[in-house]
Amino acid sequence: MTRRRKIYEGKAKILYEGPEPGTIVQYFKDDATAGNGAKKGTITGKGVLNNRISEYLMLQLAEINIPTHFIRRLNMREQLVKSVEIIPLEIVVRNVAAGSIVKRLGLDEGKKLPRPIVEYYLKNDELNDPLVLEDHITTFNWATLQEMDEIVSYTLRINDFLRGLFAGIGIKLIDFKLEYGRLWKDDEFHIVLADEISPDNCRFWDMASGEKLDKDRFRRDLGKVEEAYQEIAKRLKIIPEKNFEVIESSNPEHME
Amino acid sequence: MTRRRKIYEGKAKILYEGPEPGTIVQYFKDDATAGNGAKKGTITGKGVLNNRISEYLMLQLAEINIPTHFIRRLNMREQLVKSVEIIPLEIVVRNVAAGSIVKRLGLDEGKKLPRPIVEYYLKNDELNDPLVLEDHITTFNWATLQEMDEIVSYTLRINDFLRGLFAGIGIKLIDFKLEYGRLWKDDEFHIVLADEISPDNCRFWDMASGEKLDKDRFRRDLGKVEEAYQEIAKRLKIIPEKNFEVIESSNPEHME
Repeated sequence: MTRRRKIYEGKAKILYEGPEPGTIVQYFKDDATAGNGAKKGTITGKGVLNNRISEYLMLQLAEINIPTHFIRRLNMREQLVKSVEIIPLEIVVRNVAAGSIVKRLGLDEGKKLPRPIVEYYLKNDELNDPLVLEDHITTFNWATLQEMDEIVSYTLRINDFLRGLFAGIGIKLIDFKLEYGRLWKDDEFHIVLADEISPDNCRFWDMASGEKLDKDRFRRDLGKVEEAYQEIAKRLKIIPEKNFEVIESSNPEHME
Repeated sequence: MTRRRKIYEGKAKILYEGPEPGTIVQYFKDDATAGNGAKKGTITGKGVLNNRISEYLMLQLAEINIPTHFIRRLNMREQLVKSVEIIPLEIVVRNVAAGSIVKRLGLDEGKKLPRPIVEYYLKNDELNDPLVLEDHITTFNWATLQEMDEIVSYTLRINDFLRGLFAGIGIKLIDFKLEYGRLWKDDEFHIVLADEISPDNCRFWDMASGEKLDKDRFRRDLGKVEEAYQEIAKRLKIIPEKNFEVIESSNPEHME
């Protein structure tokens, strides 16, 4: 078995050099962290599920002409993506007040916002991913104004689409985090959606019960963490229920 | 002596009902606080100096067609201003990294920023005046997009003007905080500069020595706090040096 060159290891994923130039293999781990690494743990099967959930959502978004880095899923825990220059920002969309904004602005958790809010956080663990303004972003050249316009425009479209998609399966999309990258193509850089979309970086609340079906179950020790990830996959019908046990028991360390 | 109705008492100023409708008397106290009230003290003569410094700067800004709430100075510690509906934001302009941005974004204090940065903070002591984005501001109706465009445009002009004015007297304008209000006039609201401009809410560094000539001397216990405020007034030539002692010894509590 040939080990590929590891490019980067993050909290939830490992990136390896891809089989051809301009590609990267994204490996999904079961590791989970919260509070910028203050809390660490494992969510069994999370990597397998996030790989599938993210594949499904990226393909759905490509259908509505959102450019993404996704090429194809390779196996249980890996997907092939285009190599992009990551823009060092976490783009957060909020439809309902939850998480950090509740304390920061003194809002009531669960309260619908008058309209979706798009926030930017600098990807910097040492600084605890601080909230930043467009003025910081352009001043320090993290992205250009034109890029930010494009990012916000894609982000609002993605929000509309995903709210619809999840509403259709009885789930309220509270908020989520996106990352974008620059793809060199036809002699210029293009903004494309990168990273992943999964219960690791979305807040999903069941519409009927209000139950949380996302990483908050891990962050807040609510129990049934694995079950929440499975529930999302099941409702999206991306994993036939009968096959789920098989996937769970497969060897997650097998590479290609 | 008639006491007027007190409208509001803040950390450094008291607002009284003015002598005619639509006016307010702004009374400048010697009280100083830092760290959102965590540190409290008095800077003798500060109110007298800030009243004069702010009068001078507001008049200078009116000369370049920045609309302000300032009408005229009434006496040593008071000025008459137009009654406006205060926009609940602190607008901060930064030319050089200092204060909260240093820690938040991991910058070196004293480093010139690639270009001026305009930041917005929600005026809310309980929440510790959190940094907010334009998206929060418009979503919660703290100001409209059109108002923010006008505020940013005025703020950048004020920054250019004040940098020039202070450069002329050997002082580097590091950063400063502004507040704006809505003035009802000719059947519509107009954005006008409100509050004050003084060493309480500006960072002034002497160009030659790098010495701080502002409230940071109080915040950081650097000593010579009163002297710093006096130095700014002297360099602006708004208080003849020979009269300064007289002003200092006058009764600051005398009203009208």
